[in-house]
Amino acid sequence: MPEPADAGSLTDFYRQVRALSLRLCETLGPEDMTVQSMPDASPVKWHLAHVTWFFEHFILKDRVSGYRPIDDTYHYLFNSYYYTAGDMYLRPRRGLLSRPTVEEVVSYRGHVDAHMLRMIEHADENLSFLVALGLNHEQQHQELLLTDIKHALAQNPLYPVFREDAAAPGTSGGPLEWQGFAGGVTEIGHEGNGFCYDNETPCHRVWLEDFEIATRPVTHGEYLEFIRAGGYRTPEFWLSDGWTTVQSEGWTAPLYWLDEERCFTLGGLKPLDMDAPVTHISFYEADAYARWASARLPTEAEWETAARGLAVEGNFLESGALQPRGQDGDGLRQMYGDVWEWTASAYAPYPGFRPLAGSLGEYNGKFMSSQRVLRGGSCASSRDHVRATYRNFFYPHQRWQFTGLRLARDI
Amino acid sequence: MPEPADAGSLTDFYRQVRALSLRLCETLGPEDMTVQSMPDASPVKWHLAHVTWFFEHFILKDRVSGYRPIDDTYHYLFNSYYYTAGDMYLRPRRGLLSRPTVEEVVSYRGHVDAHMLRMIEHADENLSFLVALGLNHEQQHQELLLTDIKHALAQNPLYPVFREDAAAPGTSGGPLEWQGFAGGVTEIGHEGNGFCYDNETPCHRVWLEDFEIATRPVTHGEYLEFIRAGGYRTPEFWLSDGWTTVQSEGWTAPLYWLDEERCFTLGGLKPLDMDAPVTHISFYEADAYARWASARLPTEAEWETAARGLAVEGNFLESGALQPRGQDGDGLRQMYGDVWEWTASAYAPYPGFRPLAGSLGEYNGKFMSSQRVLRGGSCASSRDHVRATYRNFFYPHQRWQFTGLRLARDI
Amino acid sequence: MPEPADAGSLTDFYRQVRALSLRLCETLGPEDMTVQSMPDASPVKWHLAHVTWFFEHFILKDRVSGYRPIDDTYHYLFNSYYYTAGDMYLRPRRGLLSRPTVEEVVSYRGHVDAHMLRMIEHADENLSFLVALGLNHEQQHQELLLTDIKHALAQNPLYPVFREDAAAPGTSGGPLEWQGFAGGVTEIGHEGNGFCYDNETPCHRVWLEDFEIATRPVTHGEYLEFIRAGGYRTPEFWLSDGWTTVQSEGWTAPLYWLDEERCFTLGGLKPLDMDAPVTHISFYEADAYARWASARLPTEAEWETAARGLAVEGNFLESGALQPRGQDGDGLRQMYGDVWEWTASAYAPYPGFRPLAGSLGEYNGKFMSSQRVLRGGSCASSRDHVRATYRNFFYPHQRWQFTGLRLARDI
Amino acid sequence: MPEPADAGSLTDFYRQVRALSLRLCETLGPEDMTVQSMPDASPVKWHLAHVTWFFEHFILKDRVSGYRPIDDTYHYLFNSYYYTAGDMYLRPRRGLLSRPTVEEVVSYRGHVDAHMLRMIEHADENLSFLVALGLNHEQQHQELLLTDIKHALAQNPLYPVFREDAAAPGTSGGPLEWQGFAGGVTEIGHEGNGFCYDNETPCHRVWLEDFEIATRPVTHGEYLEFIRAGGYRTPEFWLSDGWTTVQSEGWTAPLYWLDEERCFTLGGLKPLDMDAPVTHISFYEADAYARWASARLPTEAEWETAARGLAVEGNFLESGALQPRGQDGDGLRQMYGDVWEWTASAYAPYPGFRPLAGSLGEYNGKFMSSQRVLRGGSCASSRDHVRATYRNFFYPHQRWQFTGLRLARDI
Ligand SMILES: [Fe+3]
Ligand SMILES: [Fe+3]
Ligand SMILES: [Fe+3]
Ligand SMILES: [Fe+3]
Repeated sequence: MPEPADAGSLTDFYRQVRALSLRLCETLGPEDMTVQSMPDASPVKWHLAHVTWFFEHFILKDRVSGYRPIDDTYHYLFNSYYYTAGDMYLRPRRGLLSRPTVEEVVSYRGHVDAHMLRMIEHADENLSFLVALGLNHEQQHQELLLTDIKHALAQNPLYPVFREDAAAPGTSGGPLEWQGFAGGVTEIGHEGNGFCYDNETPCHRVWLEDFEIATRPVTHGEYLEFIRAGGYRTPEFWLSDGWTTVQSEGWTAPLYWLDEERCFTLGGLKPLDMDAPVTHISFYEADAYARWASARLPTEAEWETAARGLAVEGNFLESGALQPRGQDGDGLRQMYGDVWEWTASAYAPYPGFRPLAGSLGEYNGKFMSSQRVLRGGSCASSRDHVRATYRNFFYPHQRWQFTGLRLARDI
Repeated sequence: MPEPADAGSLTDFYRQVRALSLRLCETLGPEDMTVQSMPDASPVKWHLAHVTWFFEHFILKDRVSGYRPIDDTYHYLFNSYYYTAGDMYLRPRRGLLSRPTVEEVVSYRGHVDAHMLRMIEHADENLSFLVALGLNHEQQHQELLLTDIKHALAQNPLYPVFREDAAAPGTSGGPLEWQGFAGGVTEIGHEGNGFCYDNETPCHRVWLEDFEIATRPVTHGEYLEFIRAGGYRTPEFWLSDGWTTVQSEGWTAPLYWLDEERCFTLGGLKPLDMDAPVTHISFYEADAYARWASARLPTEAEWETAARGLAVEGNFLESGALQPRGQDGDGLRQMYGDVWEWTASAYAPYPGFRPLAGSLGEYNGKFMSSQRVLRGGSCASSRDHVRATYRNFFYPHQRWQFTGLRLARDI
Repeated sequence: MPEPADAGSLTDFYRQVRALSLRLCETLGPEDMTVQSMPDASPVKWHLAHVTWFFEHFILKDRVSGYRPIDDTYHYLFNSYYYTAGDMYLRPRRGLLSRPTVEEVVSYRGHVDAHMLRMIEHADENLSFLVALGLNHEQQHQELLLTDIKHALAQNPLYPVFREDAAAPGTSGGPLEWQGFAGGVTEIGHEGNGFCYDNETPCHRVWLEDFEIATRPVTHGEYLEFIRAGGYRTPEFWLSDGWTTVQSEGWTAPLYWLDEERCFTLGGLKPLDMDAPVTHISFYEADAYARWASARLPTEAEWETAARGLAVEGNFLESGALQPRGQDGDGLRQMYGDVWEWTASAYAPYPGFRPLAGSLGEYNGKFMSSQRVLRGGSCASSRDHVRATYRNFFYPHQRWQFTGLRLARDI
Repeated sequence: MPEPADAGSLTDFYRQVRALSLRLCETLGPEDMTVQSMPDASPVKWHLAHVTWFFEHFILKDRVSGYRPIDDTYHYLFNSYYYTAGDMYLRPRRGLLSRPTVEEVVSYRGHVDAHMLRMIEHADENLSFLVALGLNHEQQHQELLLTDIKHALAQNPLYPVFREDAAAPGTSGGPLEWQGFAGGVTEIGHEGNGFCYDNETPCHRVWLEDFEIATRPVTHGEYLEFIRAGGYRTPEFWLSDGWTTVQSEGWTAPLYWLDEERCFTLGGLKPLDMDAPVTHISFYEADAYARWASARLPTEAEWETAARGLAVEGNFLESGALQPRGQDGDGLRQMYGDVWEWTASAYAPYPGFRPLAGSLGEYNGKFMSSQRVLRGGSCASSRDHVRATYRNFFYPHQRWQFTGLRLARDI
């Protein structure tokens, strides 16, 4: 996000982010915005309301004297996981809620926006941080909204098209080469005045051995070789939990592949683009591919070391592709955008980590168990939402995000 | 249904039934019509499409040369359980389908109606039967549509109101008395030219012992006494499967009771009407209540013997109440309407039963296992859909229908 | 059982039945007697203790002044399902109990036997009934003990042999012919002084249409034809619940078949005897076979009408075969022994049924929901335990008992 | 383990370890040795056979020409998780196997021992390593055998006593103090000639910040304060997955606590020893306790740094206590023995990690997902099995091992 140097730019940022959420829904009807296709996903409508509740609960409620919520039940319905903020409607049941309607949710957004925009005009530093947090939070949910609606539409044998112009193919991916980095004591984590989440701090020292990292992500074409080599039938490539999951889920390919030639995208059914980065794979699949390829996944410290200094450019939400695509070129590329890259690192607190105070301390810290760090943003992330120190995290079996992998190896 | 004496009256019946389905949805938005709150229920939208598919598949496809479905996938989506007609989308996943939209379903209905109305003009006897079957089928789904949307709305802590004028209280229920019937060889089952389902045939002899039956159903007030007497905590009143269900489901009252004073209805949250028949109880609860009351449930043969000769009148869908209500009076009453009455009879083929030919043989016969017969129709049944020989059936644990009970006993 | 004319014969009967339970375990080690292979089954050791507890709880405790149980926890461990007698250890966990050891259970049996034998000497009529009930109860558990250990041993890839001399083949089965019976008002149920369970009473009138019944059960060879005709892949032969079960369980043959040539028996792995009655099939399979064969299952009233007057002879536990076998001959045969024959009748109370008083009322009555009646006894039943009016009952999906089928049809 | 300087000492080690396995079973009957109380646990009998199969499969089969297994099915039954070695009997079903009997398993052990002892006499270095691996493997299973039988006996309301003299109380625990360590680049991991597992290698550099570690583990008494402070009812102390587990499992105390005064031990029901280290807690509970106590868990690098240089002494299996106990004293103590200490570290490969070749590569490496490292050994570990670099690992929700915690904090 831009440095919130003054209230004006924060207001602009607020307007932009809030407007984008609705713009993403332009092609969706009320029916689309209501369904929930699995417990991990939420209805589009719920996302629109929840991010609004976030502003209401963490800002308006405390700071606008006499603030009146539109409906008291909304707090119960749209609290996601903040136990310290009170009880909440059970996540797997969000798709049972036909009310509030989409129209009522949009009107709820308007109600909160009116209050928020008034407040931002006189924002102190603390409020500015909270607003920025709320907007970054909404950006995260914009990505979830896209991956959730993709999952929902994929359940439908009519294979609805979300965006006619999405998923156009890119260029050829170019050769996979290796770039080396020298080890030693280095620093990772966020420092400075820009916005970041608590989990990116503190900036701290780590020891790294020498390593090399691939210049681009693994492509559909390369991944298909793994499949054809019997990757999904050969236990020695897999972590034990991964192999169990392959068996119990019957996995034989990434999510959304219909066969070895077609996959479902936000542009509907499309031919597999062999030059595009493979996506919708679990950590287990990324790890198995790497083992098959006699390589490994980078640690998050290695990834951050490699990314530091690169401009945050790439195939982000702004491109409208909504699907990773091949990118020609030399040297390290596609570190940002296209696919979230699974790392070898378990999601854990940095040494000296302190979560935010109060209920906001539940934002990130309590998830530091059994999840894996992913880095770099995807084709569904806003460009100004991503940075080198950004730590995304998911469970190793999850694959409905735009997840992919980049290889690394010891020197 | 009316005797389909001529094409004209069949056309009228067709228009009425088809129109009613849409009229029942007047207060619902697209979001409401999309949700599915449990595997036993279906989205309203799905009901509207499935009953239409029924006409398309069992009539138009075979009889209109060159008939073109709007979308080939609809056959897969809207086939409910006719295995011999092909594969089908899994029932518990119907709530994942945002497409076709409500608008598209309505247009599908129009497409089929146009063809159907043309056909009916020249209907032979066989076609008339199929049309009548399709309309009776739609009437059944109208009742399911109401009970399914009730279940869906009940999941919502906003407790949406389906119909503002629903669930108005009736009169006092009057005393429960007993009416005796002499045993011997008697006949049950359907005979004559009127429409009936295959499962009501053949008319056949049975032996009955003398019995008495209660003049009205058990009321909320009476059922509350059972609860207060510890009914849900006392295993000796319960069948073994029932007691297991009480434990595993944590049942302490009928479905939709919030406490001993309020319940959810299609008119929203309402005070419990103590004179109204108790409803939304499982067979297990009906059976346990009867045991507690030193009585038993009637068999279906007893019920039919008692009902024979009574006019089919009562609190049906036409009343708009959409909730059972008390009814003053003397003698046997409320046999029809208000609540489907659980009987002691397992749902089984009558001696000599022959299912319909072809896929339509799957309509009723294959469900003759582990289900119980219910009799008499409910406040959500169309009056012209019900008759003395009508056999409804549900699993003993199900309670989202307007189910209730009437006591019987040996003399 | 023999008429308990005097204390002497009751004492003999007591000694015989109690001794048989231990004799059935002669080839089993403590490990065998401890395992529980599914929630429906119990460890052999548990059976030995539970039937002993039955005498202790329903007789000794009330009638022997100052009776001291060996261990107070036994009441909790060995109560099966008598809720009114107190809490009980959960059935699916019985296989977790290594203590009491087999030796301790045998000693528990001795302790109770000593008391019981003293009591029986001075038994009044009421006590005689309770002792007879306890012994019939133990006979039922002897059959369960055999079917439960069969199930347990079948889980073991070593395929242990329970009895070396079991499962010897019988003779050719002879042709399947039909025997007709005239309908009308008839009586079924138990009458007279001999022992029977409460669920066999009262003797009562029923109406029967004319029917025919097959002269012998369906054989392995005939059932194999059904399989080869695609029986397990063709939904139109199946009840809806049955088809669901076939899919979810992956059934393609009766339980214990390894392929179309071998099956596991209490004599170890054996060739399929094509002349022997098919066994270890669920109600669903019996019903589907009958539909495929253009016939149906008999009702229990039809079965009892056909069996009435036949001597209770056949391949019972006493033969040592422990497996059904073919039997040559003319006319109605194998009604008793070999396999329990699934009937078309749901397990329900006879008109006027009254369960036993007190906790013993839980013995039979509370199971009258969703189960099916089976008739005639099996190769694992004691001959003196079976009679024409005997009603066994299991859930339609269960198949670890020696269950089979005999066809019937309308005339 | 002792340096296997010569064949003689390896023979001695072999005899000792193999004999200990049987000695641990002295108080168990065949019934005890057959039961499996949960999928995570295995029957005692299975442990005795599996460790024997390990020698047979990884040594005898390849090295003894013409080696004949006693039974070919044993390979299928006693392979635990080596997919590359072939199919295996499903783990959760191990408790269904009554055969081979205990006696047959003991005889299988003798058969393998005879061959093994002959081989060891002429062991080259590679064989010596494999034998050492097999014996360390058996030591691990000895600990599992004890924790598995503890779990099994705990399911029994008779609360059987495994060892009469077990679980005698220790001394008072002494005050909890803090010992500081300076940060910087340090090394962890195994180096040198002694036996170690592959997962302890390579020795490598890490960066540590300054930290302090508690001088002793958290005691029962301290943990009880956490409980009484509402620890199990307060979501802010818990990781998200932990809180979910607390809710779904209904946890309110460590495993095996009956109430706040008694717990089940291998010596039977005992009073809670308030000075003894708390045990049978999950990682989630350890982590929540630490957060409540304003501290954190040590990383494995911190733990190893603190332990390095301490003698491997403590309350190990050899003490016979089979339960952690309080230990008076000053300074850092109880780092070894008593309880496995949960660390903050996810179980992951060390930089440069290479698993063993072939199927033995499945021993450790494939479990490096979603598990946590524990350090220091327990009261059920053999003393010569434990060392500073030893990495044990379990899933964060598991608590049937002798697990506990030691606090750490930043300086
Ligand atoms: Fe959120
Ligand atoms: Fe239908
Ligand atoms: Fe019993
Ligand atoms: Fe092992």
